[in-house]
Amino acid sequence: MHIFNTVSEMQQWSLKERKAGKCIGLVPTMGYLHDGHMSLVENAFKHCDDVIVSIFVNPIQFCQGEDFEDYPRDLNRDCMLLEEAGVNAVFAPSIQEMYPNGYSTTVEVSGEITQKLCGRSRPGHFKGVTTVCSKLFHICLPDKAFFGQKDAQQLLVIKKMVRELNFPIEIVGVPIVREKDGLALSSRNVYLDNEQRQQALVLNRALKQAQEAIRNGERNPNRLKDNIIQLITTSPQAEIDYVEVLNGEDLTGLETLSGKVIIALAVKIGKTRLIDNLLVEV
Amino acid sequence: MHIFNTVSEMQQWSLKERKAGKCIGLVPTMGYLHDGHMSLVENAFKHCDDVIVSIFVNPIQFCQGEDFEDYPRDLNRDCMLLEEAGVNAVFAPSIQEMYPNGYSTTVEVSGEITQKLCGRSRPGHFKGVTTVCSKLFHICLPDKAFFGQKDAQQLLVIKKMVRELNFPIEIVGVPIVREKDGLALSSRNVYLDNEQRQQALVLNRALKQAQEAIRNGERNPNRLKDNIIQLITTSPQAEIDYVEVLNGEDLTGLETLSGKVIIALAVKIGKTRLIDNLLVEV
Repeated sequence: MHIFNTVSEMQQWSLKERKAGKCIGLVPTMGYLHDGHMSLVENAFKHCDDVIVSIFVNPIQFCQGEDFEDYPRDLNRDCMLLEEAGVNAVFAPSIQEMYPNGYSTTVEVSGEITQKLCGRSRPGHFKGVTTVCSKLFHICLPDKAFFGQKDAQQLLVIKKMVRELNFPIEIVGVPIVREKDGLALSSRNVYLDNEQRQQALVLNRALKQAQEAIRNGERNPNRLKDNIIQLITTSPQAEIDYVEVLNGEDLTGLETLSGKVIIALAVKIGKTRLIDNLLVEV
Repeated sequence: MHIFNTVSEMQQWSLKERKAGKCIGLVPTMGYLHDGHMSLVENAFKHCDDVIVSIFVNPIQFCQGEDFEDYPRDLNRDCMLLEEAGVNAVFAPSIQEMYPNGYSTTVEVSGEITQKLCGRSRPGHFKGVTTVCSKLFHICLPDKAFFGQKDAQQLLVIKKMVRELNFPIEIVGVPIVREKDGLALSSRNVYLDNEQRQQALVLNRALKQAQEAIRNGERNPNRLKDNIIQLITTSPQAEIDYVEVLNGEDLTGLETLSGKVIIALAVKIGKTRLIDNLLVEV
């Protein structure tokens, strides 16, 4: 497995592989890999000849006061896991390599799709995401890139950016991977103590309750929302950031549930902000 | 010569050519071609196997009250010239094809480099330029792209964007082409009547005078500027937008002339805004 730390080495390798006719899959990550990431890698191997995994904790997608410095990192362990999985190349650049002095270029998707949900709670977050993904796409030159459905808004924003800037890349969304008890995998789960880990189950429980209500005919987004809020509020350490029921394609509001619907949650358990979501076809 | 009007046709063609090992050169234009554009095409053929010329009057790089609607257009004549020159493909999309309903993604280079000169006179202009160039680069997939030195600031901004977003593309600057009497070629020159056409010569005359002064030892940017302003003001229909003497690499200010220096002018002759510049190694 190649481990590249510089843009030019990574880009040269990808150009060479493309010239050789290889189909390249990219899995962009911030490292501290879990089974959710490994599911992205597996999916990438189903569709592509070569798989590149990028590992970069991207400073510009963290807002002031967020956990950029504390974000968990373990590059050696990550590389071992990826080598076992048969990954062809890891791209692990430094911050200076990605954002040299005087750096000032950004890519931004504006409008409702980035203003709602995490966009409201984390101003500038998606601009950081679209900027770093544009760079990673140019550096790794994938035919396909794989993103987890857990970051549902991120997936929609990146799809819109790729479509609108005409990147010659297919974006593939991969289903959420959960622990046996339903908690969505996240690198941030390590922040939770035992008590918080139990309380964190309320996110998935609330989504399942909503799914059940829809199955039983509920079509009113506000009632659905209220019931979710009510359930989450029973957890003493849970503090709701948002609970939204929206159009699953463009995140616009809904008068009544129909078509592709997303139920999206962000909840702080203690100091740890967790997100989860459910896509339903109504 | 292929003439493509849709993103997907153009992109498919470029992907096929790249797979065949061809080196692709792109000349992005707004059409109404003159010898300046044809010099870009010639240069592209020196470096590349295939040459694509894009023709698109990009609405988002025009500011309110500018000449987007009046900008001269003649696609048939342009295509005849390009066919004669041996160009392989023309990309001439509609506005709707480039900016479909709901479009909201932009690429921006911020900082001094886009705030000065034309960036000050034309707010939003460079954001429109970097956005459309990002799209054209993804659609046409060139190895090299060719831009005229006449739009000196545009060339620097695009080079910075390409470097910072890691596009796998080389940007090549091509010297200004001038009429015999010194007027820099521009599609906007057709706006000038005979009298204005004569007065427009003052731009090049001022640059030549400055060049002469530097040759004679002038190293004070302000004195240089004042002399240029004085000369231009003798033309009754000339109204100065800016006259600047700056670092030719990053457009920062200069205390004294040294290294790569740019003298850049924007002057309105009647209603027509003309730009010209001179790069000197001091």
